[in-house]
Amino acid sequence: METIQTDIVIIGAGYAGIAAAKKLLEKGKDFVVVEARDRIGGRTHTQTLDCGATIDVGAQWIGPTQHHIWKWVKETNTETYDTYDSGKNILSWKNKISTYKGTIPKIDPISLIDLGLAIDKINKLCKQIPLEAPWSHPKAKEFDSITLHSWIEKNMFTKKAKHLFNIGVETVFAAESHEISLLHALFYCHSGDNMEALISIANGAQQTLLKGGTHGMLQKVALPFQDKIYLNNPVLKITQDENIVVVETENVIVKAKKCIATLPPTLLSTIKFHPILPQRKAQLIQRVPMGAAMKCFCIYDTPFWRKLGFSGQIVSDTSPVKVTFDCTDAVTDKGVLLVFVEGNNARNFIELPEAVRKEKVLSELVKYFGNEAKNIIEYKDKCWTEEEFSRGCYAGNMPTGVLTQFGKSLREPFMHVHFAGTETAMRWNGYMDGAIESGFRAVDEVLKTLS
Amino acid sequence: METIQTDIVIIGAGYAGIAAAKKLLEKGKDFVVVEARDRIGGRTHTQTLDCGATIDVGAQWIGPTQHHIWKWVKETNTETYDTYDSGKNILSWKNKISTYKGTIPKIDPISLIDLGLAIDKINKLCKQIPLEAPWSHPKAKEFDSITLHSWIEKNMFTKKAKHLFNIGVETVFAAESHEISLLHALFYCHSGDNMEALISIANGAQQTLLKGGTHGMLQKVALPFQDKIYLNNPVLKITQDENIVVVETENVIVKAKKCIATLPPTLLSTIKFHPILPQRKAQLIQRVPMGAAMKCFCIYDTPFWRKLGFSGQIVSDTSPVKVTFDCTDAVTDKGVLLVFVEGNNARNFIELPEAVRKEKVLSELVKYFGNEAKNIIEYKDKCWTEEEFSRGCYAGNMPTGVLTQFGKSLREPFMHVHFAGTETAMRWNGYMDGAIESGFRAVDEVLKTLS
Repeated sequence: METIQTDIVIIGAGYAGIAAAKKLLEKGKDFVVVEARDRIGGRTHTQTLDCGATIDVGAQWIGPTQHHIWKWVKETNTETYDTYDSGKNILSWKNKISTYKGTIPKIDPISLIDLGLAIDKINKLCKQIPLEAPWSHPKAKEFDSITLHSWIEKNMFTKKAKHLFNIGVETVFAAESHEISLLHALFYCHSGDNMEALISIANGAQQTLLKGGTHGMLQKVALPFQDKIYLNNPVLKITQDENIVVVETENVIVKAKKCIATLPPTLLSTIKFHPILPQRKAQLIQRVPMGAAMKCFCIYDTPFWRKLGFSGQIVSDTSPVKVTFDCTDAVTDKGVLLVFVEGNNARNFIELPEAVRKEKVLSELVKYFGNEAKNIIEYKDKCWTEEEFSRGCYAGNMPTGVLTQFGKSLREPFMHVHFAGTETAMRWNGYMDGAIESGFRAVDEVLKTLS
Repeated sequence: METIQTDIVIIGAGYAGIAAAKKLLEKGKDFVVVEARDRIGGRTHTQTLDCGATIDVGAQWIGPTQHHIWKWVKETNTETYDTYDSGKNILSWKNKISTYKGTIPKIDPISLIDLGLAIDKINKLCKQIPLEAPWSHPKAKEFDSITLHSWIEKNMFTKKAKHLFNIGVETVFAAESHEISLLHALFYCHSGDNMEALISIANGAQQTLLKGGTHGMLQKVALPFQDKIYLNNPVLKITQDENIVVVETENVIVKAKKCIATLPPTLLSTIKFHPILPQRKAQLIQRVPMGAAMKCFCIYDTPFWRKLGFSGQIVSDTSPVKVTFDCTDAVTDKGVLLVFVEGNNARNFIELPEAVRKEKVLSELVKYFGNEAKNIIEYKDKCWTEEEFSRGCYAGNMPTGVLTQFGKSLREPFMHVHFAGTETAMRWNGYMDGAIESGFRAVDEVLKTLS
């Protein structure tokens, strides 16, 4: 067993951990990173397929107000391109197919007004939630006592609009509206500008893609300190006293002054703490379950739907193909259609054999794009609930009662251990940008205590 | 490191684990029990105080329809006694003190009707929930989409009745009504007969106490196989293949054909599984947070309140002394007043220094019982959120959306590992009786697969 002595040990080499390391390097500090997986990236993961195309089976998009990650894009000279957003979008509703342009499907005027008003209301409400302390809003307890579902039932009136709103919610949270607290939903929307930004391509969270995927950029960021990253080292134990924190993994023991833990809150429970975590933190990490997100990629020689006048975007009321995007690879120009499966649909779908999943996705796509949709050159899907070191995606969501009772414990350090990870972010919580923010913030905390 | 070969390894020596072991012994099977703590009992724990009185800082009462535990009472010749329930109960509301008899406080007629009707409604609704499959109820999804709080807001009309109802909820769930799903609440009430039974002494869950506490009986039950119980052995790892399950603790390795894991769902995340848990189970255990229950015991030479005409029961709108019981020790006759602190109140209260907690409890009691309440001979309190191997009490509660999406995974075995613990019980879920049921049921499952 190798023993390493350093000043700061970072747990996790996802965007949060790499951000923390980058900042520590810039400050000339001594650190190491221990990572459970055999790769950096955490909930981002770029894969190169047999046909040469790259896909991001984890997080992939960048929105215009995600300033941290844009800075990295520029620093690393990473090429970006806009998500394809021209042509007709498809709405499939009770087996009737129609087309529309923009973010909001063309539906009957009453439902359209209902939907528009609901999004407006959420946008206005969410602006009031203080990002650094959502629990301090005068109505925090009230908003944290009901599910987002209950809010929808009270504030929306047409079945169709409710259904479409819920599809939006599923796509944003990888969970259903009845699984999350209204307060958490409002905080999350404000954290990412507003609900409209979260569901949009243009000016929204799905606007920009990285050429070659997210991994290339992260690798460039991590290059100057790659020798300090210990892969294949899931942390088993954290022992602390007044002077030292000792992080034990399966293969190394790291002795440090400070620790930055970037795991999602729920995964902190896999680590044995000595002394044990304070009771409130221990109960918090029982209460931030991960969403369930699955990405199904259908790879074609070309994005054939474009020449048929389609954008590649589908919104449908029938699983598995409820929400799709054109994620055509800008390097090889292979046509990539991305199908999102979310929440319980994801947990159910991943339990089917892969051949059945592929068949089900394709037979749906044929309905919209004709027989050409059958001619895929590769199919690849990924459900993050299966990953031992994520156990869900995109992020940890908060059920009712959590943010008001436990929110303060999210970022509160425990002796020498400071907490980062996108779930602790104030801006773009749940996104890569939020992960970077959290890593920087944890470093600021640590440097203050060290100086 | 000692290696043990056996047929069945049981994890946990609480009521569930001891029940499983007892049944396996009766069937002539070979087994061992590994237990994290230095004692058996799990979330039950009898302590003998300096004055000689015994108190149960964990579970303590038995209700009349808890047939499993009554059978043990008889088999072990354990003496029982009725919870003291004579004299005046106290209601403290907005600093006004009044007295009443029975379970329901004497309040204005409108509030009284409101409260009575709400309890009636819950009692009727809960009867419809199938105990073996709550998710199969026709309205399961609807009931699982809202919090119990939302149901209260919709079905109750007076502030006072709502407040009293919520105190009842806190006492039953060790959580607030906005933290739990209506479906979970209904299931839980049905599981323990109905809501009235859960909040009552006479004919209810608080009817009977064990002389000398719960530990004496459990010890008698465990006596025939006490050499098979390995204390101080928190489980770190469970490895399985087709033929074998290997349970590794800090000190022993147990190789067995089958395993019965009796930990609360959330604590399963502290064990490393190889292969890893199926995705649905892995996400389930992120979603069953433990309640927060704290018991504060004030020990007096005699139960002096009785001679003043009081039952010792208080219901109040002010923390920490919101709900109290007379738990006078039947062996020493020392007067024991038990103060429950629940949910967030418990998490806040335990963070105060012990001397302050004691002072706060006593100064409240003086308001009700006069200066005699100051003359305690001992004060003892316990918050289960601080216990590494429980991390809350009484049991795991389900937020919205959990029972319908994950309920089936609660008891579903994973290869050779079967799951018990009171959270998996159909009757008296969350109680000692439910724990016993779950241990027996897991043994039935295991024996079926072994034969």
